[in-house]
Amino acid sequence: MSERVYLDWNATAPLRPEARAAMIVAFDLVGNPSSVHHEGRTARRLIEEARERVAALVGAEPRNVVFTSGGTEANTMALSPALLVSIMAANNETGVIQPVGAAAALIHAAGGMLHVDAVQATGRIPFDIGSSGADLITVSAHKLGGPQGVGALIKRSATLHLAEPLLRGGGQERGARAGTENVAGIAGFGAAAASAMVTMAADCERLRSLRDRLEAGFAGGPTVVFGRNAERLPNTSLFAAPGLRAETALINLDLMGFAVSSGSACSSGKVAASHVLAAMGVPGDLSAGAIRLSIGPATRENEIDLFLKAWMKRLAGLSKGRQSGLAA
Amino acid sequence: MSERVYLDWNATAPLRPEARAAMIVAFDLVGNPSSVHHEGRTARRLIEEARERVAALVGAEPRNVVFTSGGTEANTMALSPALLVSIMAANNETGVIQPVGAAAALIHAAGGMLHVDAVQATGRIPFDIGSSGADLITVSAHKLGGPQGVGALIKRSATLHLAEPLLRGGGQERGARAGTENVAGIAGFGAAAASAMVTMAADCERLRSLRDRLEAGFAGGPTVVFGRNAERLPNTSLFAAPGLRAETALINLDLMGFAVSSGSACSSGKVAASHVLAAMGVPGDLSAGAIRLSIGPATRENEIDLFLKAWMKRLAGLSKGRQSGLAA
Repeated sequence: MSERVYLDWNATAPLRPEARAAMIVAFDLVGNPSSVHHEGRTARRLIEEARERVAALVGAEPRNVVFTSGGTEANTMALSPALLVSIMAANNETGVIQPVGAAAALIHAAGGMLHVDAVQATGRIPFDIGSSGADLITVSAHKLGGPQGVGALIKRSATLHLAEPLLRGGGQERGARAGTENVAGIAGFGAAAASAMVTMAADCERLRSLRDRLEAGFAGGPTVVFGRNAERLPNTSLFAAPGLRAETALINLDLMGFAVSSGSACSSGKVAASHVLAAMGVPGDLSAGAIRLSIGPATRENEIDLFLKAWMKRLAGLSKGRQSGLAA
Repeated sequence: MSERVYLDWNATAPLRPEARAAMIVAFDLVGNPSSVHHEGRTARRLIEEARERVAALVGAEPRNVVFTSGGTEANTMALSPALLVSIMAANNETGVIQPVGAAAALIHAAGGMLHVDAVQATGRIPFDIGSSGADLITVSAHKLGGPQGVGALIKRSATLHLAEPLLRGGGQERGARAGTENVAGIAGFGAAAASAMVTMAADCERLRSLRDRLEAGFAGGPTVVFGRNAERLPNTSLFAAPGLRAETALINLDLMGFAVSSGSACSSGKVAASHVLAAMGVPGDLSAGAIRLSIGPATRENEIDLFLKAWMKRLAGLSKGRQSGLAA
């Protein structure tokens, strides 16, 4: 399958080599990080190094990072105390960046707290917890090139106290999250975060230019790009062509070697139209054709060109089908 | 550190080579198991293969296995609906095997449900969910040679409905547990379960003979073995010598190259005496000296002999200290 073109980085990003290496090192260790012996202390040290690296990515203090089993667990922990307002830093479908600072000002003026789901933003665009205005943020390792099954809930201030822990038992994560830590996964998360910090600025420019190349390729055709004029993640494009259904297009493109998505992976398989596009006022027949293309550091210009060619071919097939009276 | 002797398998077992290999294969895949494209379906297939392997280990149907981030999450999910009685299959400190069948009969007669935390039993002794009488069991990957950060809650019958999911959002795990699956971790869990099924019977005999060798070595000395006459896991021994404090002994043994434990890793760092030994009527001054030695397939006879030698040396130091009026 060497010809496959993976363009679904918002669903899950390939593992960064640094994360892979860090996990393989951890595999050779044995020890529960709560154990006091040499093996336990070595495992504990890996976790604390990773905590520093993940904290550094978002400008937080290491002690304010609570490792979880992923973004969903971190969000659930954050949302346990009602009061709180929660927004995404960047939308997972359109890539549109939300006005976190403005929301924070309004919420704080009303005495509220702001939680930001930053899983699609962190590692792709600079996100600093202090200047963002967020009180709590969620980060996910596998969106930035770390392993699946690891994430973090990060507090801006140590004085913010989380509600009752979701998982209780042992005293891990300063009592905020019980359960033996996923040492290898956490080490991989830390390595991915450190790698993202190094490559982010250059990646950001390159991805934006590749994404713009894709969208420029749509010019003159029927393809509509959603949220095109809003500030977006540099790696994401959500688009549709009237009359083309996403399910059919996805299967077609998959057979042609391209992995793309029809929105969020969490809801793929569901038939319902995107609530995000509905909220943006996109008509149902157009949103039913929405295809998300999301790229990453490994994406090459050539892959964008190949995709454009396949997309144009699909559109041509669509208009031929129409002319001959066949359904697309 | 090639001279280290790891005797703390109940805290965390070293990764089995089969689990390591399965995870490294998964690292080379990219794809979110909820995605419909080739990459997503490949990831999904790894999860379903692992589900079959984990189910087979305990005689369950694959559809009744819900993957979690570990034993603690599985226990929390099981305990969410109060009614329910929960016991351990085998105690993590003493290794004593609990009368699950008898408990099930009593609980079922009263119309109750039985949850069994089987994390220390599965992969070490045969445990069949059907014949055990348990309605729900918890299994943890890292106790049987899989990775940390993965576990499962397993139902005996598909007709048993779990309470509200702990983690909500995406529809993963048939709606029972939202969040992108830890594909590599789950693949490692499956491989470890399959490996344990193959090696368990032989391991069981070998570990029992090594454990008995250890305890025979205590004969004639002051060392007391807890739960010695009860049915126990073949790999676990909990013991103490009057006057020897566990904290001091652990540090001493660690410096001599031995990784052992003073009970559960979850509560190490806590000063409180073991509630398990207290419930067994062990006086506080003796239980304060409790050392847990737990072994696994990689443990060699020579390591048991080396440990015994070190233990005897420590006891000799203790009695010398007493004679000269020094505290141990």
